[in-house]
Amino acid sequence: MTKTMTNDDGAMRRQPGCPLCDGPGGRVVWRGAGCRVILPDEPDYPGFVRVVLDDHVAEMTDLLPSVRDALMRIVWEAEACLREVMDPDKVNVASLGNMVAHVHWHVIPRWRDDRHFPGSVWSAPQRQGEALARSAERAARVDTLVQRLQARLAAMPSADAE
Amino acid sequence: MTKTMTNDDGAMRRQPGCPLCDGPGGRVVWRGAGCRVILPDEPDYPGFVRVVLDDHVAEMTDLLPSVRDALMRIVWEAEACLREVMDPDKVNVASLGNMVAHVHWHVIPRWRDDRHFPGSVWSAPQRQGEALARSAERAARVDTLVQRLQARLAAMPSADAE
Repeated sequence: MTKTMTNDDGAMRRQPGCPLCDGPGGRVVWRGAGCRVILPDEPDYPGFVRVVLDDHVAEMTDLLPSVRDALMRIVWEAEACLREVMDPDKVNVASLGNMVAHVHWHVIPRWRDDRHFPGSVWSAPQRQGEALARSAERAARVDTLVQRLQARLAAMPSADAE
Repeated sequence: MTKTMTNDDGAMRRQPGCPLCDGPGGRVVWRGAGCRVILPDEPDYPGFVRVVLDDHVAEMTDLLPSVRDALMRIVWEAEACLREVMDPDKVNVASLGNMVAHVHWHVIPRWRDDRHFPGSVWSAPQRQGEALARSAERAARVDTLVQRLQARLAAMPSADAE
């Protein structure tokens, strides 16, 4: 990973009032140089991971290619961990930012019996009760997911060493 | 870009019945080694671009890192073109695949007055008539977008040359 995930000028941008500048945005499970991995409070989706850039930047193409690539490597590590631990039927990966225009990636384990499948997690719900029961059961794996994330991210080669 | 976007064995996977194996999935505006850029039929979102892997693979982490990186470089070129030509308020980038589990990236220009903003394009609509009128107006820029995409993608350095 690059030493800092800031742009040319090396300065970290902050935007007062932005929830991802003012706070972590969830339970921080890993911090790297310029980004963090959090578990947001999403009871329908145990194992939902967000990879949040520390710098307040709206779009991926606002970033230097090296910074963008370093951020995506974290996203792929998160996806790999989700697949290993949570046994999802699909993984959804998205950077939207319509509400909070500060780069953050949603990495979401999806199951055929989850609340919105096959819709997006932002679509109208497809089911309720039984989906919640399965979520509670799957939540038991989140501690393992956190350990796996921390181990894999700690083992990542830094861009400097490549 | 890598010569082929296939995996270790070099073989291209196909899944009969998969709409992205059986057909292009939209108007093809560019073809590279192992992927294509298409304009799907999304009248609410002129300039909506999809970057579709030719290989039938469900998840990004099924791909070799070099293939993944090459695909993402196309996605960032598409985002950059959208920003240059379509003047969106935000760009949304997502790989979901719940309906069609064959890697494809949505690269979507968003405007504050579009049909779903600030929701995702998969969320409940927020508005109708005036959003459609603005879409028709924005559609006039799509020819320019296509030219810009073709020019930028043709100018991309290949991974072999890097």
